[in-house]
Amino acid sequence: MSVEHHEPVKVTFEPEGRAVSVLPGTALIEAAVRAGIVIETPCGGAGSCGKCRVEISRGAPPAGEADRRHLSSDEIARGVRLACQTRVTGEMFVSVPVAARLFEHRILTNGQGRDVPLHPTVSKRHLTLTPPGLEDQRADEDRLLAALEEKKVHPGLEVLREMPRILREKQFDVTVAVAEGRVVALEAGDTTARNYGMAFDIGTTTVVGFLIDLTTGRELAVAARTNPQIPLGDDVVSRIHRACEPGGLQELQHKIMGGLNEIIADCCRQAGVASEHLYEATVVGNTTMSHLFLGINPEFIAQAPYVAAVRRAVNVQGRDLGLQIHPHGIVHVLPNVAGFVGSDTVGVVLAAGMHEATGRALAIDIGTNGELVIGNRDRLLACSTAAGPAFEGARIRFGMRAADGAIDKVLIDFDIQCNVIGNVPPRGLCGTALIDLVAELLRVGCIESTGRLLPPDELPSSMPEAIKRRVREGEKGVEFLLIPREETQIGADIVLTQRDIRELQLAKGAIAAGAAILMKEFGVKAEDLDHILLAGAFGNFIRRSMAKRIGLLPQIPSEKILYIGNAAGAGARMALLSRKCKMEANQIGERTQYLELAGRADFQDEFTSAMMFPES
Amino acid sequence: MSVEHHEPVKVTFEPEGRAVSVLPGTALIEAAVRAGIVIETPCGGAGSCGKCRVEISRGAPPAGEADRRHLSSDEIARGVRLACQTRVTGEMFVSVPVAARLFEHRILTNGQGRDVPLHPTVSKRHLTLTPPGLEDQRADEDRLLAALEEKKVHPGLEVLREMPRILREKQFDVTVAVAEGRVVALEAGDTTARNYGMAFDIGTTTVVGFLIDLTTGRELAVAARTNPQIPLGDDVVSRIHRACEPGGLQELQHKIMGGLNEIIADCCRQAGVASEHLYEATVVGNTTMSHLFLGINPEFIAQAPYVAAVRRAVNVQGRDLGLQIHPHGIVHVLPNVAGFVGSDTVGVVLAAGMHEATGRALAIDIGTNGELVIGNRDRLLACSTAAGPAFEGARIRFGMRAADGAIDKVLIDFDIQCNVIGNVPPRGLCGTALIDLVAELLRVGCIESTGRLLPPDELPSSMPEAIKRRVREGEKGVEFLLIPREETQIGADIVLTQRDIRELQLAKGAIAAGAAILMKEFGVKAEDLDHILLAGAFGNFIRRSMAKRIGLLPQIPSEKILYIGNAAGAGARMALLSRKCKMEANQIGERTQYLELAGRADFQDEFTSAMMFPES
Repeated sequence: MSVEHHEPVKVTFEPEGRAVSVLPGTALIEAAVRAGIVIETPCGGAGSCGKCRVEISRGAPPAGEADRRHLSSDEIARGVRLACQTRVTGEMFVSVPVAARLFEHRILTNGQGRDVPLHPTVSKRHLTLTPPGLEDQRADEDRLLAALEEKKVHPGLEVLREMPRILREKQFDVTVAVAEGRVVALEAGDTTARNYGMAFDIGTTTVVGFLIDLTTGRELAVAARTNPQIPLGDDVVSRIHRACEPGGLQELQHKIMGGLNEIIADCCRQAGVASEHLYEATVVGNTTMSHLFLGINPEFIAQAPYVAAVRRAVNVQGRDLGLQIHPHGIVHVLPNVAGFVGSDTVGVVLAAGMHEATGRALAIDIGTNGELVIGNRDRLLACSTAAGPAFEGARIRFGMRAADGAIDKVLIDFDIQCNVIGNVPPRGLCGTALIDLVAELLRVGCIESTGRLLPPDELPSSMPEAIKRRVREGEKGVEFLLIPREETQIGADIVLTQRDIRELQLAKGAIAAGAAILMKEFGVKAEDLDHILLAGAFGNFIRRSMAKRIGLLPQIPSEKILYIGNAAGAGARMALLSRKCKMEANQIGERTQYLELAGRADFQDEFTSAMMFPES
Repeated sequence: MSVEHHEPVKVTFEPEGRAVSVLPGTALIEAAVRAGIVIETPCGGAGSCGKCRVEISRGAPPAGEADRRHLSSDEIARGVRLACQTRVTGEMFVSVPVAARLFEHRILTNGQGRDVPLHPTVSKRHLTLTPPGLEDQRADEDRLLAALEEKKVHPGLEVLREMPRILREKQFDVTVAVAEGRVVALEAGDTTARNYGMAFDIGTTTVVGFLIDLTTGRELAVAARTNPQIPLGDDVVSRIHRACEPGGLQELQHKIMGGLNEIIADCCRQAGVASEHLYEATVVGNTTMSHLFLGINPEFIAQAPYVAAVRRAVNVQGRDLGLQIHPHGIVHVLPNVAGFVGSDTVGVVLAAGMHEATGRALAIDIGTNGELVIGNRDRLLACSTAAGPAFEGARIRFGMRAADGAIDKVLIDFDIQCNVIGNVPPRGLCGTALIDLVAELLRVGCIESTGRLLPPDELPSSMPEAIKRRVREGEKGVEFLLIPREETQIGADIVLTQRDIRELQLAKGAIAAGAAILMKEFGVKAEDLDHILLAGAFGNFIRRSMAKRIGLLPQIPSEKILYIGNAAGAGARMALLSRKCKMEANQIGERTQYLELAGRADFQDEFTSAMMFPES
């Protein structure tokens, strides 16, 4: 998924009329997830089952090959498409039939979709006060609070300072924004219709922000940026080291705040909203990102025994951080679980409703670190495992992120079939394609279960010639030619190396071992799980059969493996929309038991065996 | 009383061992009031009744004339003195016998003295935490809060930022300062013994600060300054006008903060205390002073209908104002009653215990504005009346404040007897002497009840010649010669003019009319009052008989007129020492009904008649 600075476009889902703004190139199923609608994709988005039909009444892109295979020409003419094969190219109106819906946000609570009740922390009240007179000399504050009829509300100093002038600006006709005992803002006239908030998902690599109308619950805009801290450190640990240098913490905080403020400005521009009408921002991120965002020393997260400074939710004012919402608006950072399981994971549990579910689910959010949570309403257990950046394309010879020019899908029939994002010549391969390619090479016998890429002379004779020809001795050992240089953008052969396979083994081994330990501690086997939930942008594009074939996911029926989209971000949005969800998030943070894998002998054993590929 | 920058000296009262620091020249009865001990002075401090005997075991000044009249030479040798005649000259140890005590702080609650329970808002806890390990990976915050065993405590962002470092500075041995759900400070090691606070009384003219040890309740230091806002406006109304000019409010706030910070530095130096160990400051002042201190627009206090912005107590952090206590320490401004009845008056009611008393009392705090409160535990009624600055010496030809060189007492026997502060030739006369002189001239028949100063040819023949000779025609009408130029410091005759008498009539008429209206509204006559309480530095030096003779105070027995010292400041100290007192202050601010005198026809009538002097 590209997160470059394209102008976002609006996608409206019918019959709800829910609109989201997404970046061009976003998969339609991802856009739907953002709108709280999860489209069923039993084949894992491979375009092979034809179940994810939606009707695009405006802005339908040309039908693709899979569309033509599954849909009649009448349907295609009407705008019916397979959601899993469709990318957003411009403004769209999309009707999602009930049959195509898997669940909405809270999939597991009762097996049915359920809306988040709209009850934001900040509410606005329009008040017409009686002006003072000699017979009614109440102080401005008393007059205001009496009209508010809330006993325990205190205006902050800044509100008190402006109060006399604002009250008199429109003859004591005012609007008050109130949040949990505090007057956040006082405005002349009736401004109740202008009540907005931002939800942020701060990833180590990518930062996404959503602008939400708190009176309707609608998402008005979305914007994303590459995390501007990247130049100061690629991953969590290198950023912690940077934070320990003199001035480093301030610099990191300054960088992320700059990025978030750009996102705010961008969203406000899209939605035509003034930033002083943003009264709350909710934030999820991994524990280190939260610490850096708040300017809290993350030093001891990176050293044994890996202890966070802060685990609970933090509430501060916008101006305390330099976040350019209303200066006295609330910034609510959702709680963490532990040093390596952050509020993003809490957001996943919240959005998936695991904390209320009776069934047993395992949620996996794959990034540089894989965070895993197992459980249900009775017990939640989490761990973190260092998958490394292979799935994001790093340390893979021709690895890249899922941007234009990335091969994102590989199939082998008689020869290699590739899909390239953006219909351009390829530049490299992203994580999903890496999984596909290794899975397919395992199937055809090019790779042994140890991960060894067989040299040309050891290849099984049953293998198609076209595939055989691609295996060759490279400078650093055996390699597999995916795309010859003349078909690429980069003037070089795109190959898969033995080392790439080893990187993938480390990455998938870490995730699989973490899952195995969690299941063991929880006392279940893979077959006892009711669901595996794949969260995050990456998780949503993994093909389930391929992931099982390489042993990244356990061998359970694919229909039990569900895509839940950017569930961390959805959790941040839910906390913004609903005080109840905020409290649930606090309980999730409190309740979820953290399993430390470091130093566990059984983790080392699991990891060693999980690096192997399953025997077919 | 001089408030110049002398070094304060310590006075210790026995048997309690209560020590206060006061400026040299302070009357011993005032120092005692600051220590919470009120010495009985039935004669109003005239030195005539001999009841206020105390024994000064160290630092006794030479005996005065009144001492020699009432005490044996044995007693004088032992250090016995009349407290009302004694000024503090250096360090003193003073034993106050029970017989000489009128009451302590809470005079009216049960007729007995009562101590304020020591229960400050900020308390400190020393905690030895278990350091983290792989088997106990709780976040720093969770570890700390679990040890605190308080569910609802939240550390602020600044504490969170420093927490990881501070916890590890002395191996998880820390002290936490907690106040009402907030961690104010986190310090390495055991610092429980260092818990201090400041109580401030911000007067329009004078600012006083008291440094209190919050673990013992003892006052460790006191310092005073002239209010540094004076150059920007002499009185409340001129300061409000200044605050309405561009930048004026900020300038006024900056000035007062500078003065308070000097007082803090001064007190800390005296007591050997570091300002970062000051965790709370309580503040009283008139409503305008409170607004200016907080930087809140006071504009509408000065315009009909005279409405304050803020009436309730305000809690902010030291750094929000630039007050140099601990940056996250609490600044608590006590509540106001109305635009012209401020938290200083609430402090008076609190210190005197009027809100809990069954008897009916009238409290009068005389300054440029006179604030009056009548009532008891069932009902409290307050008003403010513009006395003008006559009592402070302004607009009086030879008026001055009660500093060195001020005549502070006048008696007429065969001729004039004067007392001059500081045993130097006189420079002018202060408010108490003005009252004395006019009262005595009324008694001998020099002044008519209309206030007319009789010309030499109309003086009654019975009048002593020495007095008659002093009445003369001056450049601007009849005047009374108090001190001939050769006996003064200023090379000019010190005289009382007809205009001076008119100024006094306006001032005392305003107070008396306010009192009359309050009594009328409350439904009592002067003789029904159980007490009149005179608050403030000025009130403590008025001689009751003189005040009654000019009609400033109603004609009730002098023993019902009590001096309660700097009760406003005492209220600020009580709020600092006790959360219960803070809550009581909130209730007083809420309950006290404000009577607006402006525009009341009956006030004009009362005022006109109260300007007259009583017929003798």
